[in-house]
Amino acid sequence: EALLWKSKSTLTSFGVFSLQMGWGDLGVFGEPSKETPNLDQMASEGMLFLDFYTANPLCSPSRAALLTGRLPVRNGFYTTNAHARNAYTPQDIVGGIPDSELLLPELLKKAGYVNKIVGKWHLGHRPQFHPLKHGFDEWFGSPNCHFGPFDNIALPNIPVYRDWEMIGRYYEDFKIDLKTGEANLTQIYLQEALDFISKQQASQQPFFLYWAIDATHAPVYASKHFLGTSQRGLYGDAVREIDDSVGKILKHLQKLGISENTFVFFTSDNGAALISAPKQGGSNGRFLCGKQTTFEGGMREPAIAWWPGHIPAGGVSHQLGNVMDLFTTSLSLAGLQPPGDRQIDGIDLLPAILQGELIDRPIFYYRGNEMMAVRVGLYKAHYWTWSNSWEEYSKGIDFCPGQNVSGVTTHTQEEHTTLPLLFHLGRDPGEKYPLSFASDEYQRAMERISAIVQQHRVTMVPGEPQLNVCDKAVM
Amino acid sequence: EALLWKSKSTLTSFGVFSLQMGWGDLGVFGEPSKETPNLDQMASEGMLFLDFYTANPLCSPSRAALLTGRLPVRNGFYTTNAHARNAYTPQDIVGGIPDSELLLPELLKKAGYVNKIVGKWHLGHRPQFHPLKHGFDEWFGSPNCHFGPFDNIALPNIPVYRDWEMIGRYYEDFKIDLKTGEANLTQIYLQEALDFISKQQASQQPFFLYWAIDATHAPVYASKHFLGTSQRGLYGDAVREIDDSVGKILKHLQKLGISENTFVFFTSDNGAALISAPKQGGSNGRFLCGKQTTFEGGMREPAIAWWPGHIPAGGVSHQLGNVMDLFTTSLSLAGLQPPGDRQIDGIDLLPAILQGELIDRPIFYYRGNEMMAVRVGLYKAHYWTWSNSWEEYSKGIDFCPGQNVSGVTTHTQEEHTTLPLLFHLGRDPGEKYPLSFASDEYQRAMERISAIVQQHRVTMVPGEPQLNVCDKAVM
Repeated sequence: EALLWKSKSTLTSFGVFSLQMGWGDLGVFGEPSKETPNLDQMASEGMLFLDFYTANPLCSPSRAALLTGRLPVRNGFYTTNAHARNAYTPQDIVGGIPDSELLLPELLKKAGYVNKIVGKWHLGHRPQFHPLKHGFDEWFGSPNCHFGPFDNIALPNIPVYRDWEMIGRYYEDFKIDLKTGEANLTQIYLQEALDFISKQQASQQPFFLYWAIDATHAPVYASKHFLGTSQRGLYGDAVREIDDSVGKILKHLQKLGISENTFVFFTSDNGAALISAPKQGGSNGRFLCGKQTTFEGGMREPAIAWWPGHIPAGGVSHQLGNVMDLFTTSLSLAGLQPPGDRQIDGIDLLPAILQGELIDRPIFYYRGNEMMAVRVGLYKAHYWTWSNSWEEYSKGIDFCPGQNVSGVTTHTQEEHTTLPLLFHLGRDPGEKYPLSFASDEYQRAMERISAIVQQHRVTMVPGEPQLNVCDKAVM
Repeated sequence: EALLWKSKSTLTSFGVFSLQMGWGDLGVFGEPSKETPNLDQMASEGMLFLDFYTANPLCSPSRAALLTGRLPVRNGFYTTNAHARNAYTPQDIVGGIPDSELLLPELLKKAGYVNKIVGKWHLGHRPQFHPLKHGFDEWFGSPNCHFGPFDNIALPNIPVYRDWEMIGRYYEDFKIDLKTGEANLTQIYLQEALDFISKQQASQQPFFLYWAIDATHAPVYASKHFLGTSQRGLYGDAVREIDDSVGKILKHLQKLGISENTFVFFTSDNGAALISAPKQGGSNGRFLCGKQTTFEGGMREPAIAWWPGHIPAGGVSHQLGNVMDLFTTSLSLAGLQPPGDRQIDGIDLLPAILQGELIDRPIFYYRGNEMMAVRVGLYKAHYWTWSNSWEEYSKGIDFCPGQNVSGVTTHTQEEHTTLPLLFHLGRDPGEKYPLSFASDEYQRAMERISAIVQQHRVTMVPGEPQLNVCDKAVM
């Protein structure tokens, strides 16, 4: 989800960031209904990333990480209200992206880019967090997600903005029929994208478009044309509409003759929300659990890079990637260096994308303020495991429905810091068979992993947490 | 696994039948390591079947069904020793394919075909069941699987035959190094296939080649060249060798100039054996459970049809298919009618393959002597559910490791014949969310399904069971 184009004279970027679409939701990743011909074709014309991750299994922190190139624990998108608790920006959290953070569009401006966000911002809803204060030139969308509406009049409904102006609210002015699932929001977002691209092409200005649509978050919707067209029900209708929209955007770039100057990246912000399955939630394929968890189902994302004439068609990469890399990679495409005054976690993926290199780097799996797990090569070590609390579970909230791996999918937070649970994700992508602590393989792998984790911990300087629940008495 | 070629002058067929490779073992079906470039390319040049099934979640009955076009309960490949118990042909069962059954190669002979089986026969090891007595002209392989060896001297080791002659035994003459996993059996089978194809092409005779390799059954092996090359460990090495072999066979057909006259089908005999996972067992993707069960993981199979110049490249079919269809389809390609004197369960898939038609037909899921479930359209109704017995489970044998769907993956045989458990496989391919019995959707779907099941039951004439354990006192 960061597209950049690059030509002799112009550089352009474009990103698609789908809301909690799972790894297993795309035909090319094995969804049995195979209903994403456009994304599948994007992959066959571009490069498929099989080992691409988000920085947090929840929306707000994932987006903050994408736009800053930094782990949420650094950029402040986490909470210290409780241990290993994910947090996001709903109405009763007053935090947001700190001014001290440098966002991708702020930096791209220096290279003459015009930046637009279409869709969900999710980095804070108070005025000082407005996207146009953080490098974007244009915005169509909402500060938060469309779920709700909040009936409590003390809490505002979800506003929709065009740039500085609030132009309406979800449900009231931008209809979502919760009974039929009909809403034409994705079509509106699509048109915003096409218009912006056309305008930028006409003015010969490089652009960065962050297409951060609301679908497929529950309540799931699709426009009339797509309703009832999927084998998968309403959720599949929504996926098909996104697939169709991405196809239209790519065709638009081709029609305007700028496809070879446009780097497009498609990915998602967190794993499919299995709590909403099957009618309102997607699929993480064969991976364990989903959204909110640090198992593969919560954090491994569908990912496709597309840049005709540059990326070899039909490429497949096992590079360990992360949404934070899109920050660094986009800067690289624009000929910019990442900021030197702070720790940047994202790496430049261009050597992996263009030369097929494999860059050795770890993936850290955070849940709130805790590093739960780390992946090094094909090994993943869990330092903490947790699905969700007994309290939630007893209310029917299950992050791992139908899955139960003894000692792994625990409803209490289990600490393994002295003897991490180790999995080999090649032989066991489903995280079902922890390696024996006594094995040579365990010893060898953990030796390497421990050093990396030690280094990560001693150099970690957490940012001021932005997502603590506000003390209303103080407000 | 049934390839037929068809030209103005000649008709040829060829089949690949992989031993318990799972739906999720192919890159094109979403295996995260994506290590099957040849099978993926076969799919991109041919047609991918997403809803293709075996007739039984165990090897012998599945193979008997393929070669007779009939359900195992009709052709005798089942047991009445216990309810819903799968059975196969090990050393202490004296049954086999009855002479009264008409096998595909027997029928193809009438159209001038030369028929060869390479690999595992599994339809009986006594002399009267020999493949050359049932229509095959040539055989290289074994009556049973390579697992073992049987150390008990009262039980024979596994013999390997060339036609009528026993030329050696597994482990003794055809080495399998259980420590390193090295064995060059797949290479031997590959050479047998290539040589046969060359010979038939030279003699201008139509042929049917049934390439029924032993891999990937446990103990898993691969030849030296492939050992250690997969992210997935030894199992992945074996898959890569099969993938490479299929690629070489297809290239051989192309090189000989007969690819457009050769219909090739790739599939598997049952779902991946999760009891052998992760080191010796494969993946059923996101489907529930595996081999031995009538959940999707036990019976939905990878399936690809390939016939350049006839099958549109990159085709995808949602036709409900079954290995038994390869019997009828192969006859159709050879211009033959299926026998009219008996019930044939397989249908001719050519309209689905060549014209993209969708033929309405049910899929019956048998386990031993019991119809456990039926699929009609996207609905699947379970009349019986069972994973495996408490007795086995307490010994660590688990057909659904890491999976636990309350009321579905039961360790006792649960009867639902009056009120079947109903799933919508489009919205819920993982069989986790039974539909509410009270819903309109349940009522409507079951009305249709009940009629089909009723019809199936009243017209069912079971064959004499061949796989009952023999009474050694009588022998």
